[in-house]
Amino acid sequence: MRHFTCVQDLGDLKQALNEAFEIKKDRFQFSELGKNKTLLMIFFNSSLRTRLSTQKAAMNLGMNTIVLDVNQGAWKLETERGVIMDGDKPEHLLEAVPVMGCYCDVIGVRSFARFENKEDDYNEKILSQFIEHSDRPVFSMEAATRHPLQSFADLITIEEYKKTARPKVVMTWAPHPKSLPQAVPNSFAEWMNATDYEFVITHPEGYELDPRFVGNAKVEYDQKKAFEGADFIYAKNWSAYKDPNYGQVISTDRSWTVDAKKMALTNNAYFMHCLPVRRNMIVTDDVIESPQSIVIPEAANREISAQTVLKKILMGLSNL
Amino acid sequence: MRHFTCVQDLGDLKQALNEAFEIKKDRFQFSELGKNKTLLMIFFNSSLRTRLSTQKAAMNLGMNTIVLDVNQGAWKLETERGVIMDGDKPEHLLEAVPVMGCYCDVIGVRSFARFENKEDDYNEKILSQFIEHSDRPVFSMEAATRHPLQSFADLITIEEYKKTARPKVVMTWAPHPKSLPQAVPNSFAEWMNATDYEFVITHPEGYELDPRFVGNAKVEYDQKKAFEGADFIYAKNWSAYKDPNYGQVISTDRSWTVDAKKMALTNNAYFMHCLPVRRNMIVTDDVIESPQSIVIPEAANREISAQTVLKKILMGLSNL
Amino acid sequence: MRHFTCVQDLGDLKQALNEAFEIKKDRFQFSELGKNKTLLMIFFNSSLRTRLSTQKAAMNLGMNTIVLDVNQGAWKLETERGVIMDGDKPEHLLEAVPVMGCYCDVIGVRSFARFENKEDDYNEKILSQFIEHSDRPVFSMEAATRHPLQSFADLITIEEYKKTARPKVVMTWAPHPKSLPQAVPNSFAEWMNATDYEFVITHPEGYELDPRFVGNAKVEYDQKKAFEGADFIYAKNWSAYKDPNYGQVISTDRSWTVDAKKMALTNNAYFMHCLPVRRNMIVTDDVIESPQSIVIPEAANREISAQTVLKKILMGLSNL
Repeated sequence: MRHFTCVQDLGDLKQALNEAFEIKKDRFQFSELGKNKTLLMIFFNSSLRTRLSTQKAAMNLGMNTIVLDVNQGAWKLETERGVIMDGDKPEHLLEAVPVMGCYCDVIGVRSFARFENKEDDYNEKILSQFIEHSDRPVFSMEAATRHPLQSFADLITIEEYKKTARPKVVMTWAPHPKSLPQAVPNSFAEWMNATDYEFVITHPEGYELDPRFVGNAKVEYDQKKAFEGADFIYAKNWSAYKDPNYGQVISTDRSWTVDAKKMALTNNAYFMHCLPVRRNMIVTDDVIESPQSIVIPEAANREISAQTVLKKILMGLSNL
Repeated sequence: MRHFTCVQDLGDLKQALNEAFEIKKDRFQFSELGKNKTLLMIFFNSSLRTRLSTQKAAMNLGMNTIVLDVNQGAWKLETERGVIMDGDKPEHLLEAVPVMGCYCDVIGVRSFARFENKEDDYNEKILSQFIEHSDRPVFSMEAATRHPLQSFADLITIEEYKKTARPKVVMTWAPHPKSLPQAVPNSFAEWMNATDYEFVITHPEGYELDPRFVGNAKVEYDQKKAFEGADFIYAKNWSAYKDPNYGQVISTDRSWTVDAKKMALTNNAYFMHCLPVRRNMIVTDDVIESPQSIVIPEAANREISAQTVLKKILMGLSNL
Repeated sequence: MRHFTCVQDLGDLKQALNEAFEIKKDRFQFSELGKNKTLLMIFFNSSLRTRLSTQKAAMNLGMNTIVLDVNQGAWKLETERGVIMDGDKPEHLLEAVPVMGCYCDVIGVRSFARFENKEDDYNEKILSQFIEHSDRPVFSMEAATRHPLQSFADLITIEEYKKTARPKVVMTWAPHPKSLPQAVPNSFAEWMNATDYEFVITHPEGYELDPRFVGNAKVEYDQKKAFEGADFIYAKNWSAYKDPNYGQVISTDRSWTVDAKKMALTNNAYFMHCLPVRRNMIVTDDVIESPQSIVIPEAANREISAQTVLKKILMGLSNL
């Protein structure tokens, strides 16, 4: 594997899951693989889990890590070609990217949707430039349209907790005060579509996701109906994808908050969320604190998904 | 030892001091102890010495370190339970803490008193949540009420420089323009009370510390009288503890500044301060630059106190 | 070698270049040299290349690295002696510097000219205090008057790309909206003067550099004439050095921008710039993207220059 931006990059998903579970048994068994290899983690946006779990994963593999917060301590980057750069951005991504590539062996990039231009976002304008110009393997630490390390961790978690071969997994929209990207729900849908699970998406009218990600999922506008018989509830807010509301909050309807009453409709479902989560907007205190809440093991699996991806990239580097 | 938040956690103080001096002779003798162990250092507040000395100590022990500045590059954290999180804080400490625990083996936390609620501060609301919810050994890198790594380094320094078995140690309040926590003086008092030194505290009326920390110290309101015969002068500003002035600056009286004239009253005392120090507020240039000033060796011992604490925590982890 | 702030510190330049090329062949051959040695990198200003390349170089040598952004997460530092510190700066450089020295073996410092006081800048007030008070080897990661790691990388690059023994190297001023220090052009001139190249500086009237740096360079006010027959074009903006305009932008004349037409006057010259570069101010898109642009290999050599310098400092530490 060279780059990692979506589920397809992993190759055989079953085999990737097996690698992940192998790593989870002993995360230090490949600590020679990353010797003298440097991971550069570039953040255009805030991060807690991704920052920590990816560093930890890289260190488990014996890699050196360098963390760069682009908006803190580095230069602001111009991303448009042809601009006369007489404003507040002293460096162009077209120089910064190959330069960053010079000083490392693998690059992780976090770059959220900016909601300035839908086409730019959905073409992964920033991530693509790293892939094109850095001369290094690049992996997404959440890009404009997908968050594959999260989705991979989600999948690992479901595999660990599922009680039937083909669980019913329901991804539900929930309210949030701010305008959030579609990366997590897009990505989760993409990964669920790569399994044989029963997969349902529920959200208010107007919150339809890009059909390329929805795929074969069943879309159900009645949240309660969607929850019936569910084995996993995957809650997440996202802003509207459809024009003319792209990137807008069109509802903060708290009747969509996941609460105990709705959870009672499920097949004693596990509650999942990628975190950070707004309590009492997305989910009530009692649900997220209940024994069925697996948000912490889900987060813990971020180390495993990152380490599996880094291991595959390192093996690609050394042609093993 | 599991957690480290106060002098009692160290167990036998003499033995801990011996361990510290052992480490100081060769700080790389335990570099296998931390192999494949990760220290996560979490800063809610600024730091220079603690940041550097604790990282250095961890690296001396062969640990990996990850530094997280909560207010830079991560998410702002909600600390109140039951809140409808529709404001500017996207993550709750109740999720963030166990998640942080997932990605490391040991957690260091810096979280100052906030002066919003005295009870919250003196109950160590933030630090306690890390201890309760992280599932990891937690040590204080200065919390609301104590700064034990500083006090331990102070004690090591006094042991190195003392000329009599039971030196007279005087902690003196000194003026400062800003409202500072009581953590350093509380903690220093707590540690001095654990020794058999002669310990005196001097400050203006109204600056009385919490009696639980003052312990058996003699409180002397006349600074000059307190200085007589002192072997060590430990200067520090703090804001008022007593209600209704909790957290307030009630005096900036520069007659309390430590100067050469006052130092002349002592038994050729060493001058100590935890740093950062406001020159010509806390202490004059000539005193802090005099041969009797041991603020730099005192700061250097922060590496030793941190390494002793980390070593004891690592040994607790491996049940050695 | 103990400190590294200018070309003279390197000793024999030919030998240093040989060491650099030796390192470039296998950058991990000295990975034992830095064992249990800690590099502290202190940034008073933003950094991308220096931050990454110096960390990478240190890790190649097996060093531990700690990065400190003084204006983020640490305390603001007072630099004037004798001040009553009752303002917004809680710590004095006179304490901070020796304290920083305590926790590391080697210190790198970035501290740009502040343009508040020309004498302070040209006396390297900040860097000097680190050399004087830290008790550690100190190297410049760009100081007020020089950027020697950049110049060394520039020299390595010219040596790699030159087609004649004594190439003609032209440093040209180019327009920029902001007031920039003279460190890079000063330093580049200093290093070029240490070679036997033909070295020409071209800039508008009023942009004369300090004669101590200009040295034996030919100064040519006609940019086109300067470019004739050049083998290397080294573009850079700087603010005025001469009084009363010290630190001022006295021209943003875009007729000085390096474009294809001017490059056509050269001997098919390579285009160099230290980066970050303002496109279409300093240089047009087509020139910087042309095959003759070697800004990326130039930046990549920052790792090599830093590693050579660190290796020499480490060998000085161990008296090898």
